[in-house]
Amino acid sequence: MNFFAGFDKPPSQLTRQELEVCYARVMEAALDINMTRGLPSPAQLQLANPYLSLPGTSDFVSRSLIDWRNYGCLQGMPELRELVAEVLLGLPAEQIAVGENSSLALMHEALGYAFSHGFSTSPRPWIKEPSIKFLCPVPGYDRHFAMCEEFGMEMVPVPLLETGPDMDQVERLVASDPAIKGMWCVPKYSNPSGAIYCNDTVERLAKMPTAANDFVLLWDNAYAVHHLTDDEVPNQPLAKLCEEAGHIDRPLVFASTSKILLPGAGLAFFGSSRANLAWWLKHRRSRTIGPDKVNQLRHLLFFGSSKGLVDHMKKHRVLLAPKFERLEAELLQGLADVRQVAWTTPKGGYFVSLDLPKGCASLAVRLALQAGVALTQAGATHPGGTDPHDRTIRLAPTYLDLDTLSMAAKALVVCVLLAIAQNECSGNGP
Amino acid sequence: MNFFAGFDKPPSQLTRQELEVCYARVMEAALDINMTRGLPSPAQLQLANPYLSLPGTSDFVSRSLIDWRNYGCLQGMPELRELVAEVLLGLPAEQIAVGENSSLALMHEALGYAFSHGFSTSPRPWIKEPSIKFLCPVPGYDRHFAMCEEFGMEMVPVPLLETGPDMDQVERLVASDPAIKGMWCVPKYSNPSGAIYCNDTVERLAKMPTAANDFVLLWDNAYAVHHLTDDEVPNQPLAKLCEEAGHIDRPLVFASTSKILLPGAGLAFFGSSRANLAWWLKHRRSRTIGPDKVNQLRHLLFFGSSKGLVDHMKKHRVLLAPKFERLEAELLQGLADVRQVAWTTPKGGYFVSLDLPKGCASLAVRLALQAGVALTQAGATHPGGTDPHDRTIRLAPTYLDLDTLSMAAKALVVCVLLAIAQNECSGNGP
Repeated sequence: MNFFAGFDKPPSQLTRQELEVCYARVMEAALDINMTRGLPSPAQLQLANPYLSLPGTSDFVSRSLIDWRNYGCLQGMPELRELVAEVLLGLPAEQIAVGENSSLALMHEALGYAFSHGFSTSPRPWIKEPSIKFLCPVPGYDRHFAMCEEFGMEMVPVPLLETGPDMDQVERLVASDPAIKGMWCVPKYSNPSGAIYCNDTVERLAKMPTAANDFVLLWDNAYAVHHLTDDEVPNQPLAKLCEEAGHIDRPLVFASTSKILLPGAGLAFFGSSRANLAWWLKHRRSRTIGPDKVNQLRHLLFFGSSKGLVDHMKKHRVLLAPKFERLEAELLQGLADVRQVAWTTPKGGYFVSLDLPKGCASLAVRLALQAGVALTQAGATHPGGTDPHDRTIRLAPTYLDLDTLSMAAKALVVCVLLAIAQNECSGNGP
Repeated sequence: MNFFAGFDKPPSQLTRQELEVCYARVMEAALDINMTRGLPSPAQLQLANPYLSLPGTSDFVSRSLIDWRNYGCLQGMPELRELVAEVLLGLPAEQIAVGENSSLALMHEALGYAFSHGFSTSPRPWIKEPSIKFLCPVPGYDRHFAMCEEFGMEMVPVPLLETGPDMDQVERLVASDPAIKGMWCVPKYSNPSGAIYCNDTVERLAKMPTAANDFVLLWDNAYAVHHLTDDEVPNQPLAKLCEEAGHIDRPLVFASTSKILLPGAGLAFFGSSRANLAWWLKHRRSRTIGPDKVNQLRHLLFFGSSKGLVDHMKKHRVLLAPKFERLEAELLQGLADVRQVAWTTPKGGYFVSLDLPKGCASLAVRLALQAGVALTQAGATHPGGTDPHDRTIRLAPTYLDLDTLSMAAKALVVCVLLAIAQNECSGNGP
């Protein structure tokens, strides 16, 4: 399907009228494509098939000597903690705890304890503070922002650069405002841009003085092993750097196997300093008798070792990398020479971030939706769901098969060009 | 093993010196028995063996059309909700949501939302109230009390009678004190006494006027189907009665399959009015993308139907009922004619509650521990871990095999009699 057929000039040089013709063709195609969320594809889900019959009547005996079929073992079985600790969290096994199926829920839980009790370094529970602010690198993850809203935390946006958050801004803000108690970080293959926090950024995050004594980095290592290229970015040594800088309790690290094994059926992990882990378990004890150790054993048997987990991710990469390449190719073909249009080429993770001229993102998303291609809502990448420049669109290529992805990308190109043309005509152009 | 061998009178008529001899024999037996918690036995765990290989590569397609291997379905799959709703919660499937593995965690979550946001009926979030009080029927469940402590809620004890909480006291308290926002209830086979809330109690709980507009009953239906006799007590119609009384949002109902399938690997459920369910899901959405639907499917395939679940519980009963009978027989033999000693004979659940003369419980537990029999800490059945009369001991007979249970019970009898004798000698007697 070529929506530009018959025009003998590149798409970027079509007039608004010509683009309306192309858009009418998109409408005629009666597409019904959903690329709103970062879902693994059915082919990826099949990689987990052997997991679905585990553990069987395994004779596994945990070193903890707690029966994996009965209550107990609040922190999680040591064997599983050892398997995931370094590779997913960059921490030793003693400093992590296994949760349920959602790392997001563990972040919510950590914030809940901070509000009701505070950290050991807090002068008082956060709920007693007049206000709590969190730094939010943008573009960022909408569910982090939604959680801030749920807890009534004020979001302070800071630009996310290719090297991580704009550290000049970050350092200035945290040094002066004691209400800033924390910061969201997706340090690797960030959602949605794929940005990777560079060594300098991580070092500065570890070292920077903060007005709040109990300032924490919510380090969402969602894409720890989700590489798309041979340039496999290792886990940043945040905990070590924080310890060296005298800020040992600063990082709260989260990860899960949702996009390694199966979404929803995976396991989530929390890791931090020894003191914070004790704090976590103390409060958690009032909440639950223990985690699902049968699922821990399933993970142990399925992956076998940390290397097994890493190797498993290579199978995901085989399925995912061609999709990112295809999306890139379509964007290049349709939007390469369009002013103020740019997109990221991530080395890992689940998303591509597409930037348009100011004021065009929500219109492009609306046009796409009308034409049967559902994208992540424009603005979702920013606090409060409002992108002040209305520029950024998150693209989620993982779920679709290659042909459908191509079709969606071709439609997107038309919608983007038409949105820019319409926007210029309405006097909102750059 | 007969610790009373050689004495030609009933144990209850032995002198303190004679009892010291018996206790020395218990010590000599070098027992190492743990009956502190209500754990299912290994034989019970084996009933779940077929679950351990589920779901396999099932071709199940949920009516919700959401892939059970991928993200989504916040409320839980409709098929599973239908299977458990009436039988475990006494509510329609639309009014329940599936959580993770722990009903305790769902109670914590509900209280968390109440504190941070309040219910729709709340004048303000609970955190803004000068104080929050909860009625705690005693003897009760230590983890309920610990959760009150975690949230800084003041516990107001009310006596748990054979028919449920002392409703005269309850009605008087809730009518006059707007700080009393809720009440813990284990309505069936209560932990630890096995008490069953009678119709009149449930009706009064539903109808009673409360000074707090947002008063809630935390209805922990932990033992919904955990019958030990043919007199299978049905779920009380709390929701219906509350609706009829104009208090539709009063009950928050919780249950889990921890003691039906496997502890830790089961599923927990929350149910309430439609309005409260919407409230629950709204806040939950900020917390998690969705529950573990693979485990939901495992449950569906393992039980097949509500009847399948109820039938499965008959297998538990076959294993459990003889233990309760054995414990009863040992107590009868050793303590039947001892003044101010009484115990419950539950028709279901996991515990027996043993009452001693005032001031004897902690001593008896200490003597037992010294002799190698770990019991639930005395006082655990009361708020703050303090039984003001030091009378009540929770007995947990489920985990032990029959012979070990007999041995523990015989040792307990000696310790109880010796504690009473020592207590009388020290001038603390009744």
